[in-house]
Amino acid sequence: MDFLTEVEKLKAVYRQNMVYDRSRHENSAEHSWHLALMAVVLSNEAIDPAVDIKTVIEMLLIHDIVEIDAGDTFLYDEGANLDKEEREDRAATRLFGLLPEDQRDRFISLWREFDARQTPNALFAAALDNMQPVVNHFVSEGYGIKNHALKSRQIIEKKEFIKDASPALWEYTRSVIAKSEERGYYSAD
Amino acid sequence: MDFLTEVEKLKAVYRQNMVYDRSRHENSAEHSWHLALMAVVLSNEAIDPAVDIKTVIEMLLIHDIVEIDAGDTFLYDEGANLDKEEREDRAATRLFGLLPEDQRDRFISLWREFDARQTPNALFAAALDNMQPVVNHFVSEGYGIKNHALKSRQIIEKKEFIKDASPALWEYTRSVIAKSEERGYYSAD
Repeated sequence: MDFLTEVEKLKAVYRQNMVYDRSRHENSAEHSWHLALMAVVLSNEAIDPAVDIKTVIEMLLIHDIVEIDAGDTFLYDEGANLDKEEREDRAATRLFGLLPEDQRDRFISLWREFDARQTPNALFAAALDNMQPVVNHFVSEGYGIKNHALKSRQIIEKKEFIKDASPALWEYTRSVIAKSEERGYYSAD
Repeated sequence: MDFLTEVEKLKAVYRQNMVYDRSRHENSAEHSWHLALMAVVLSNEAIDPAVDIKTVIEMLLIHDIVEIDAGDTFLYDEGANLDKEEREDRAATRLFGLLPEDQRDRFISLWREFDARQTPNALFAAALDNMQPVVNHFVSEGYGIKNHALKSRQIIEKKEFIKDASPALWEYTRSVIAKSEERGYYSAD
């Protein structure tokens, strides 16, 4: 319960993205809910039959918990990404350390698996985590990211791996990136 | 994807409870994330061996989606609870209707199962859904509910069914209710 009470704080870790009515920034707890729900609805889009959706959901529910201590690191902020690993390692040790030993070890290992993006489950989870902000930028009319002058090319570079998890979801993501560029939320170059 | 975009709106459905730093009310999307995570961490506390945690998680991820149209109905608001069922039925038809047929039927049936609280999965899911606000009231020092003059007895009446899902979780919930009463967040009578 110490852990489950401590994670209340993830509701106050804010991301660059906005909620659909642009009244405030999206937080990492509701972002995690959205991803877990996407995993349930889009489970058939995973190309690798080894994908186990229960594990993917668990990964997505815990993938951002380290941000309680380490903060949300914006994907396109190269400076902040330099020491991200060290900050998040410390956070994982403290936060998952609030759990009983067996759960602590399981959660740390799930979180590392997600982060390394080498297994079918982690690849599919990361694909959803990388697809959702693109849709969110479009739905919130680019408000959360308008000060970052993102280029479509930059986004495609970071997210192209989605096609290895699911060609269909990558095709969809590309189409949303193109629509966002048309509307001026991302720049062409 | 229409469904997954529409559910962005759950992030803007606010509950009575506050987030831990009392900066704003908790919304139903992050509440759902918290419950799904509780299901993962507390799965061993379910007394009925028939409980399937994946199904419980799915129920919890979708259980509040009807609130996008029907709003959050405060458990202790007797007036608002009179037409809750009708409002939520209409909402379920529209919102889950955005999904492909097989998923629509599955989600409506999962949501109805949750609501009826008759199966082991639904009972455990409802236990978590009823336990989380009690802990939240304590953590947020009673701020979200201080205008409602809740009595411990009222809360115990509504939540006592938790013991049928998990005696251990009910014992914990009762101890938190007692601590909240001591601190004056609930009144003794």
